Amino acid sequence: MILARREDAEKLDANDPLKHVRDQFSLPHGVIYLDGNSLGAAPLSIFARMEQAVATEWAKGLIRSWNDADWIDLPKIAGAKIAKIIGAAPDEVIVADSVSVNIFKLASALLKKHGGALGVERKEFPTDGYILQGLSSLTGASLVEVAPGEDAFAQGIKILVKSVVDYRTAEVADIAGLETIAARNDAVIIWDLSHAAGLIDLNLKDTGARYAVGCGYKFLNGGPGAPAYIYVRCDCAENLDQPLAGWMGHAAPFEFSSAYKPASGVSRFACGTPPILSMSALDSALDIFKDLAMDEVETKARRLGDLFLSRCAEMGLETISPEAGARRGGHVSLKFENAYEVVQALIARGVIGDFRAPNIMRFGFAPLYLSYAEVFDAAIALRDVLETKDWERPEYAVRQAVT
Amino acid sequence: MILARREDAEKLDANDPLKHVRDQFSLPHGVIYLDGNSLGAAPLSIFARMEQAVATEWAKGLIRSWNDADWIDLPKIAGAKIAKIIGAAPDEVIVADSVSVNIFKLASALLKKHGGALGVERKEFPTDGYILQGLSSLTGASLVEVAPGEDAFAQGIKILVKSVVDYRTAEVADIAGLETIAARNDAVIIWDLSHAAGLIDLNLKDTGARYAVGCGYKFLNGGPGAPAYIYVRCDCAENLDQPLAGWMGHAAPFEFSSAYKPASGVSRFACGTPPILSMSALDSALDIFKDLAMDEVETKARRLGDLFLSRCAEMGLETISPEAGARRGGHVSLKFENAYEVVQALIARGVIGDFRAPNIMRFGFAPLYLSYAEVFDAAIALRDVLETKDWERPEYAVRQAVT
Repeated sequence: MILARREDAEKLDANDPLKHVRDQFSLPHGVIYLDGNSLGAAPLSIFARMEQAVATEWAKGLIRSWNDADWIDLPKIAGAKIAKIIGAAPDEVIVADSVSVNIFKLASALLKKHGGALGVERKEFPTDGYILQGLSSLTGASLVEVAPGEDAFAQGIKILVKSVVDYRTAEVADIAGLETIAARNDAVIIWDLSHAAGLIDLNLKDTGARYAVGCGYKFLNGGPGAPAYIYVRCDCAENLDQPLAGWMGHAAPFEFSSAYKPASGVSRFACGTPPILSMSALDSALDIFKDLAMDEVETKARRLGDLFLSRCAEMGLETISPEAGARRGGHVSLKFENAYEVVQALIARGVIGDFRAPNIMRFGFAPLYLSYAEVFDAAIALRDVLETKDWERPEYAVRQAVT
Repeated sequence: MILARREDAEKLDANDPLKHVRDQFSLPHGVIYLDGNSLGAAPLSIFARMEQAVATEWAKGLIRSWNDADWIDLPKIAGAKIAKIIGAAPDEVIVADSVSVNIFKLASALLKKHGGALGVERKEFPTDGYILQGLSSLTGASLVEVAPGEDAFAQGIKILVKSVVDYRTAEVADIAGLETIAARNDAVIIWDLSHAAGLIDLNLKDTGARYAVGCGYKFLNGGPGAPAYIYVRCDCAENLDQPLAGWMGHAAPFEFSSAYKPASGVSRFACGTPPILSMSALDSALDIFKDLAMDEVETKARRLGDLFLSRCAEMGLETISPEAGARRGGHVSLKFENAYEVVQALIARGVIGDFRAPNIMRFGFAPLYLSYAEVFDAAIALRDVLETKDWERPEYAVRQAVT
């Protein structure tokens, strides 16, 4: 799909079944936002919801809002909305803490139940591996790091943490296939859905997936550092003891009993008092997905990425992502020696992508608010930055805290 | 201090050195809020700050705000403000996660470094004990629960979690005294400051306290479920390995290296991506303390409580809190068989306290926004509810999710 003319991209937009969804977002003028895979754009509903959470629920309702505004059930309410998006039952997901903390909870609980070695692929998003290193160091459990492509289960891994969408390449894992192999090896997989939820048509209930975590701030658009979530298939929760046994995961937190008794199901994975303002933003953002078909969402993301990849191929840029036409997450990654500088030069032109060390330019295609015409324009901007060598300006080499 | 006439209370208000602080809060009309010890009232600054965080930083700034709005340093920025309030150095506190998660981090790290039995008093706030139960269950470390008054260290406890202000009675622990005993026993204490920070003149640097956690949503007024914090004295952090080794606690998170290398000092206790909206609210709320003297704050809280206690004594109500004149946290607790119903009857009249199972009425006296006249009026309302037996109305017996 190489579109030579902008009018062709505009035609795709005119026929886009998701084109109305863009109106539900607040997007700044003069920006083409290709980083929704890092931080989703702000849904318009957030403004009224935050006003309500702060001015009505907190300032006026005060402590009463735990009941009257149902703050106490917000982790379950938002969890049920995420469940629908990822294809799980409403009571199989709870919103809590961060991805890192949630991996620790699940991995610990599974370690206690099943024993065996923890494992992660070397290319995995670092925090997933760091958390297993921490758990291994605390408990003495062995930790195996495998190379991409190696059979993790043949290496003796019994508890594997694996991303559904690779944060660098956007490769999509075969959940059902790996679950079958895991089951054959008496092993379990904790899926990290961070780059997949709200983008890939996951349909977890048909895959055999039993355990998963994910963040709320990428394609779910829940806001910066939005709380994360845990999915546990309903038949797998009852015998899991997780060590972050905070009072919000207790069967009866307000009895103030001194012995911990876990809540039923996935609710036992709640821990401390949740950050209600951030969780309210996430809860509000999730409503955008109410009437969306996830297969349409995934298809549009892939087509946006295909369009961009086709133009990059013309420029001679090398991608490490699945090629045009192949199944892929919501971003494409290009290898370029001066990736950092090129990304800065593009940002200066209002085309926002991101850099991943050491030499990756990453561009995300959030299908709910991006148009084909914007992706066309972004590719033109990239070509111009490369052709003019604009990226060589010294200011683009200045490193910032977050890259 | 029994004030027979409301005018006497009004005189105290007129001479209150903190009276101007009330103007910095949004308080609903017709409410006397005696539950700031559970959820602090909303500072007026929150409204503009949340507007900025949502509309400017998130919606317009998008991913750039991690640098441009300094989201990346917010845990340290807010931490430094809390440090000032509790009497620590700016780089000894970081805002992260919840109290429950932070106790787990600290207790795990100390267990790894020092070994020995974990311990908690039976009367401790439940989540503190639950977390140690979880850690004990995961690692096999022994957990000792001692009765109030028992010498925890004589029982072999090497890592004690202890509240500075008891959530039921408001008794204030002798931090310096217990630290001396702990040091003599080669033991350490993790202080839970939740009911103390923003209320008690803690002055940690003069007490020998080495480790502490606390929540942001009580007397710090950070909003519902505001993020919590960790304090580690600067000379104690370097050899601590905490197992919740998320990428935000890494020395260089954006290098994406596969090996975890902890950041220096207390920063290593950060974990996953923090909830920026909730953390922004907390950060804004903390500014109220900028020019306040914590000894004045503590004194006013005690005097408000003294006034209330004096009137309760007249009504023949039994308190489990330190008596009038004694050092006390920011609340008083009264024993009454039908405590739940009385609290509901008071809430119906706009006097908001809370109930703690099985038979405790708890009333908090947040000195930043409460007046002596309000406390006088609240005592009158309580007397009226008891004298008229208004609390016997059946609707007040209906239990709610959060009590």
